[in-house]
Amino acid sequence: MTATRTETDSFGPLEVPADKYWGAQTQRSIMNFPIGWERQPVPIIRALGVIKKACAMANKAQGKMDAKIADAIIEAAGEVIEGKFDDNFPLVVWQTGSGTQSNMNANEVISNRAIEILGGEMGSKDPVHPNDHCNMGQSSNDTFPTAMHVGIAMQARDVLLPGLRKLHAALEAKSEDFKDIIKIGRTHTQDATPLTLGQEFSGYAHQVKKGIERVEASLGDIYELAQGGTAVGTGLNTQVGWAETVAANMAKITDLPFVTAPNKFEALAAHDAMVMFSGALKTVAASLFKIANDIRLLGSGPRCGLGELILPENEPGSSIMPGKVNPTQAEALTMVCAHVMGNDAAVGIAGSQGHFELNVYNPMMSYNVLQSMQLLGDSASAFTDNMVAGIEANEPRIEKLLHESLMLVTALAPTIGYDNATKVAKTAHKNGTTLKEEAIKLGFVDEEIFDKVVRPEQMIGPKA
Amino acid sequence: MTATRTETDSFGPLEVPADKYWGAQTQRSIMNFPIGWERQPVPIIRALGVIKKACAMANKAQGKMDAKIADAIIEAAGEVIEGKFDDNFPLVVWQTGSGTQSNMNANEVISNRAIEILGGEMGSKDPVHPNDHCNMGQSSNDTFPTAMHVGIAMQARDVLLPGLRKLHAALEAKSEDFKDIIKIGRTHTQDATPLTLGQEFSGYAHQVKKGIERVEASLGDIYELAQGGTAVGTGLNTQVGWAETVAANMAKITDLPFVTAPNKFEALAAHDAMVMFSGALKTVAASLFKIANDIRLLGSGPRCGLGELILPENEPGSSIMPGKVNPTQAEALTMVCAHVMGNDAAVGIAGSQGHFELNVYNPMMSYNVLQSMQLLGDSASAFTDNMVAGIEANEPRIEKLLHESLMLVTALAPTIGYDNATKVAKTAHKNGTTLKEEAIKLGFVDEEIFDKVVRPEQMIGPKA
Amino acid sequence: MTATRTETDSFGPLEVPADKYWGAQTQRSIMNFPIGWERQPVPIIRALGVIKKACAMANKAQGKMDAKIADAIIEAAGEVIEGKFDDNFPLVVWQTGSGTQSNMNANEVISNRAIEILGGEMGSKDPVHPNDHCNMGQSSNDTFPTAMHVGIAMQARDVLLPGLRKLHAALEAKSEDFKDIIKIGRTHTQDATPLTLGQEFSGYAHQVKKGIERVEASLGDIYELAQGGTAVGTGLNTQVGWAETVAANMAKITDLPFVTAPNKFEALAAHDAMVMFSGALKTVAASLFKIANDIRLLGSGPRCGLGELILPENEPGSSIMPGKVNPTQAEALTMVCAHVMGNDAAVGIAGSQGHFELNVYNPMMSYNVLQSMQLLGDSASAFTDNMVAGIEANEPRIEKLLHESLMLVTALAPTIGYDNATKVAKTAHKNGTTLKEEAIKLGFVDEEIFDKVVRPEQMIGPKA
Amino acid sequence: MTATRTETDSFGPLEVPADKYWGAQTQRSIMNFPIGWERQPVPIIRALGVIKKACAMANKAQGKMDAKIADAIIEAAGEVIEGKFDDNFPLVVWQTGSGTQSNMNANEVISNRAIEILGGEMGSKDPVHPNDHCNMGQSSNDTFPTAMHVGIAMQARDVLLPGLRKLHAALEAKSEDFKDIIKIGRTHTQDATPLTLGQEFSGYAHQVKKGIERVEASLGDIYELAQGGTAVGTGLNTQVGWAETVAANMAKITDLPFVTAPNKFEALAAHDAMVMFSGALKTVAASLFKIANDIRLLGSGPRCGLGELILPENEPGSSIMPGKVNPTQAEALTMVCAHVMGNDAAVGIAGSQGHFELNVYNPMMSYNVLQSMQLLGDSASAFTDNMVAGIEANEPRIEKLLHESLMLVTALAPTIGYDNATKVAKTAHKNGTTLKEEAIKLGFVDEEIFDKVVRPEQMIGPKA
Repeated sequence: MTATRTETDSFGPLEVPADKYWGAQTQRSIMNFPIGWERQPVPIIRALGVIKKACAMANKAQGKMDAKIADAIIEAAGEVIEGKFDDNFPLVVWQTGSGTQSNMNANEVISNRAIEILGGEMGSKDPVHPNDHCNMGQSSNDTFPTAMHVGIAMQARDVLLPGLRKLHAALEAKSEDFKDIIKIGRTHTQDATPLTLGQEFSGYAHQVKKGIERVEASLGDIYELAQGGTAVGTGLNTQVGWAETVAANMAKITDLPFVTAPNKFEALAAHDAMVMFSGALKTVAASLFKIANDIRLLGSGPRCGLGELILPENEPGSSIMPGKVNPTQAEALTMVCAHVMGNDAAVGIAGSQGHFELNVYNPMMSYNVLQSMQLLGDSASAFTDNMVAGIEANEPRIEKLLHESLMLVTALAPTIGYDNATKVAKTAHKNGTTLKEEAIKLGFVDEEIFDKVVRPEQMIGPKA
Repeated sequence: MTATRTETDSFGPLEVPADKYWGAQTQRSIMNFPIGWERQPVPIIRALGVIKKACAMANKAQGKMDAKIADAIIEAAGEVIEGKFDDNFPLVVWQTGSGTQSNMNANEVISNRAIEILGGEMGSKDPVHPNDHCNMGQSSNDTFPTAMHVGIAMQARDVLLPGLRKLHAALEAKSEDFKDIIKIGRTHTQDATPLTLGQEFSGYAHQVKKGIERVEASLGDIYELAQGGTAVGTGLNTQVGWAETVAANMAKITDLPFVTAPNKFEALAAHDAMVMFSGALKTVAASLFKIANDIRLLGSGPRCGLGELILPENEPGSSIMPGKVNPTQAEALTMVCAHVMGNDAAVGIAGSQGHFELNVYNPMMSYNVLQSMQLLGDSASAFTDNMVAGIEANEPRIEKLLHESLMLVTALAPTIGYDNATKVAKTAHKNGTTLKEEAIKLGFVDEEIFDKVVRPEQMIGPKA
Repeated sequence: MTATRTETDSFGPLEVPADKYWGAQTQRSIMNFPIGWERQPVPIIRALGVIKKACAMANKAQGKMDAKIADAIIEAAGEVIEGKFDDNFPLVVWQTGSGTQSNMNANEVISNRAIEILGGEMGSKDPVHPNDHCNMGQSSNDTFPTAMHVGIAMQARDVLLPGLRKLHAALEAKSEDFKDIIKIGRTHTQDATPLTLGQEFSGYAHQVKKGIERVEASLGDIYELAQGGTAVGTGLNTQVGWAETVAANMAKITDLPFVTAPNKFEALAAHDAMVMFSGALKTVAASLFKIANDIRLLGSGPRCGLGELILPENEPGSSIMPGKVNPTQAEALTMVCAHVMGNDAAVGIAGSQGHFELNVYNPMMSYNVLQSMQLLGDSASAFTDNMVAGIEANEPRIEKLLHESLMLVTALAPTIGYDNATKVAKTAHKNGTTLKEEAIKLGFVDEEIFDKVVRPEQMIGPKA
Repeated sequence: MTATRTETDSFGPLEVPADKYWGAQTQRSIMNFPIGWERQPVPIIRALGVIKKACAMANKAQGKMDAKIADAIIEAAGEVIEGKFDDNFPLVVWQTGSGTQSNMNANEVISNRAIEILGGEMGSKDPVHPNDHCNMGQSSNDTFPTAMHVGIAMQARDVLLPGLRKLHAALEAKSEDFKDIIKIGRTHTQDATPLTLGQEFSGYAHQVKKGIERVEASLGDIYELAQGGTAVGTGLNTQVGWAETVAANMAKITDLPFVTAPNKFEALAAHDAMVMFSGALKTVAASLFKIANDIRLLGSGPRCGLGELILPENEPGSSIMPGKVNPTQAEALTMVCAHVMGNDAAVGIAGSQGHFELNVYNPMMSYNVLQSMQLLGDSASAFTDNMVAGIEANEPRIEKLLHESLMLVTALAPTIGYDNATKVAKTAHKNGTTLKEEAIKLGFVDEEIFDKVVRPEQMIGPKA
């Protein structure tokens, strides 16, 4: 038998575990929503701590809240920010769509902890009331959307962007390492004109660089906070300037450039900023999908594939085929990318479904966005460490393929015309011969001209 | 100046082109919805003809409609079925979500044509009224959903299933042709144990076979028709048995097994049958995507790719690279497949958004489903004719790769154990040698045993 | 300091926690894939137990495996099935795309447990080897896809279908309870002709009934198992009949109708059965989305909404608005439905991306499908208990709205014609009067006829 | 019998219609791709004209092309830009994934027209060759991606942004018109605290304003052009500076700020800029979906809905229910929004699927993006003209609902506490009484205080 404590809400008393700080509304949510296994992500919990602290600071400064109570709330909320109460947030994503129950979870935990700090009795709501004090000047309707934005902004700084920047640096480095290795290009999966392996990797690096810029640009709207809109966007039960003050407080607490949202009606009823941000995540996913696919195909083999890259060996690849090594990091990453695309679809649907003054898909939207960020950040990092960093060029193989290719004929076209060049390539293909043999035999060029014109090292950029 | 005729509806008179049969409501829709370029697809138009004919037959049989009028409507609707009036259906998809305006378009064209047949004056609504006669016993709310189902069922029979069956037959034939060609398998894009090229194609053929079965199975719910539900599903303004009669008439007209839907409230307010059917189309798209990707990669080259398949050359591949030939049919097909996945996403969203007694995403849902069917059917057919039928195995290349592979070591594992077999493969990989050399050098087997055990032709099925 | 034990794989030795049964490959996966927080779902773990048991039974019966070893494996695998080792499966979804590492996790846990049973030393691989014994006749490439199908089939039986059946029964019951309550219908969100509240709920019930049928029908392909295909579909290292035997064993162990897949190449390289099954889940999601939306709108108010339904009050609704009660169960359910649509999109993409002999999106596909099933099953159940079961009709409100509606005019149309009926409705709307007043004033009917014709109770079905 | 002319390509001669300017490669594409009905959109055709003109200008300026030939090409390309040859671009979207055939279509039409201008014989390729002259310095691989960006940028300026700006202005105007109308707010679809109707519309206006900004911001990457990368991104067969020159020429021709892409490898192999841009379109769709849903629900009725808005009547709403008027513009718009979400899903998939040096989903990606832009622009405009502009507030209804609401109790909470305020609201709800009656009866306030505190006009903003 677990020891319990009686907590009450307007629906009556309920027993909660004695060693937990949550109250009746949290407990009621556990009972009413036995759905799935997905809890509110940690960034949301921490962000609720940020909000409760910022609001108590503002309420104290404006003289609306007794300083002693405010200080206790500030201390308790600070502990939530530090992660001391992560295990006191048991609610799942699949609760009320406003996130009210998670907001009350924060109010209940913080008020009980503040009561404890002040020497009172947990569950008494005295001297710190979860609604009247911890939620003062707030509604779940502005608080939870604010928590979503704050959580996303922190997750971007702490997880997503570091992962992407690490990957970008590694791809840039490989692009530099490989800058003198000329290889055959491939378009339509078919042989094409040459480029350097460094150029190929520069394309990957540029994709990731742009991805970072897109994420950063999309954070602009995320820094705008709904707090201060209260129930329907009007700011009822707040005072002029309060919204600006709490946004400034949150900026100070987190060292992130938060500001108050210019239109609170939009900020509660729609989450377009998150839909757009999710679109940036989807774009990053599309980029990484392409890069991972290329790398595993270029590294396919070891003997029957393209074999231009030698990929690092990290673990046994097969439970039946001894000695097999697989591009498993590319697989984890492409699974992540496809999953992020699914998350984006869900976020778009949810974002479109607000009714009147409120969108009630909050916890699901933030869960999907935060999961996408975690997965992209983590897998970009793992892909860097366990794949990109260890890639080597298989130079003999690259050299061999380059010189067998028929597409070097493209260099001849400006000299002999497209139609004649076509004849050269087709004849060599049919006869299994070289371009040079056929170009000379067909009388379009002599050996000297061929050798002067068809030089891979002069085919990798515009003419000077 | 185009000659016009005055038509009227409850909003007043409007001028319509004199050489067209439509009336005021169609014209009003043209004016009010200048959106996009996507017209109602032809199967919807023809299906509306089927409905109007079936209903007039029922109304005549039940004595509710004057026989002369009924016969004129039946004749006019028959002409719609034959396609004589395809150019009299100018409305776009992006109109009222119930499809009311396209239903009225059918009513107006058929009533005017019937008036013409009966020697009356077009636009007079006398002796044939678009609502009172052509729409007798009907509402757009049951008629348009019925048209969607009828149109889809015809499209499945006439376009989608023939395309898929043709592709299936071609893949089956290739599987048979290639049944004795042993090749290296690839898992994780890396070399794996061998199989026959015929086995590989049998997997493709099986995918398409199952796709056909899934489409056929999902048609079951499509054959259930909403007609008879009228405005909200109750069947107001019809008589007991009417729904069954008109469904039977439509079955007779089209030779398809239509029946009346068992619950008309569901049939108007939801389009779950179409959501499910679209899921089957998406599954087919996923199958074809995989097949097309495989074929272009197996046919990559001609000199720097996998090169196991020789793909047919259909057109010049490049405007800059002379002689280049590309797997363009695979490209068209994979574009179709990705597009069908997008259509499916849209259909799912639309299907979830019914309100109360009606879903008002009808024209969009049917447009997407019919487009997906057309594209899958057409591209399966083109892919068969211009790609699959002409695929040849590059046997020397296949043979060469097979014997270079290290994964034949898997056949050794039951004899020498997984861990020793791993050593053999890794050593051969490191040294660039053969499995046989290393297996003997490491002392795990002698030559006789190796040759007895490692035989690709005995690795392509379970032991007898 | 945690006590550790040394385990080895072909990449070398690794320390693992002494109190865990997993081995070196599992540990290596933990190190190489620090991505996200999503572990392999429990149904996959249990299904791996089912497979390992079924294969050991077959291997023992065919005399390929020592009976003592086989029995120990069977016992250990049985414990996995019972859930005793759920906490010994620490791997995340984002690992190798074949699920090899989770297959090896099962092999390692079971072999170590079997060694323990037989009195050996964990980590010694003696007398039970994770590959040579636990994986005998298997490859991850057939085992993991089999685990996905087995896990899904168990989840359907244990979670999804019970949830849907419970919801269906509750909706059916409400449909019966409400069968005599006549209410205004709504199409295009606008007033329409009447129906009974029971009819409205019958539509919802029918949607769920069809959803159950669609899930059941789509399970057909799920019951087909890849086991026996081994590495690339050929069945290398198995014997003729083995695939059939292990499928039969799995059917016996689980009491589900599993059979061996007819084409193993397809079963490894594609997961179309799961894509199709996910489409059925998406269709269920679309149905439930619609139902939940309707119920919250019909129950909107309490004073400023439609107010036809009285919804159960389960918890305080607002942290700022005292006394507010919200349709939170509808919100949880619609969040689930949108999320399931996102999962379906991800599954479709993943299903299309197989390469050659293997699809390497296994863990992600099964995670998404199993999550969708859990969420739909759980939320259908919670929605039934906490919402549907407690819905009451607000009869006075329903009655009031019904008699104010103008759309009862539809009953007049067969008598006075569509155009005249339109005039009656429009005039009454303009003047704020009743249909009866205007119909008489306009001279279309007298009071007696009006009262005889316009009777809501005769507008809820076809004429007899 | 249509008169024909013989044209040739490297695959041989073909007959083309004598009255068309296209050549053999276009004709061959018609034959090989009988798929669907979706042609290359007009903005792509015009953009190809822009490119061919810009390149000929550069080639002439650099002295690479004979001035007479260049001038003829410039003149012919100018006619393509003006739309004179729209009917000479018969190819469908479902062709080669690089768009090569549409690029050749442009080359063929322009070269034949230039030949005509110069008095030569069409089909002779003399004196103007489709490849050697019209395609000089170009590859389809850089040309078609450039056409996609140029087409999208023109479509944004000409269709999408004007539509959104028009809608934004109309919503702003309504927000101003309705600024003094206080109404009940609704959260969770349930009654909440009041706001003004102007505030509600300000939220809609702000959504559209942000949507415009998001589109504009996402155009930044669209202005970067691939031209100059030629076959694989290296710029083979161009000269240093050429890329910059042609981008500048295109900027001049279109008056749009085009620049050359900084990394051509990325610009050919990936289309992340389009994926991101599509995400912005999806975000706009989510916004408009929400706005349209709100407006139709607020305008629901006329007698049995919320009835706060009076929506314009544009056409008869029902073929069976006389006098019915429906929010059809909202239906068209929400269909568009759901469709755009599907398009976005398809674009994301396609964008992720580039292989090596080329993404071959070009025509499908641009088709989807351009369609989304057309539909959003057109429907925003139609929704403005036929819906928003005509919306009126139903003030008596709004006033009535406001004063019946129980959520005005929120104003009491700061005075009497959350728990007591809850008691007041719940008691009034149970008894069907007013808040005032119960607040006084329960002894929490007297009449004077109640009247001072509970004033809707003081609940619509923060306290001063």
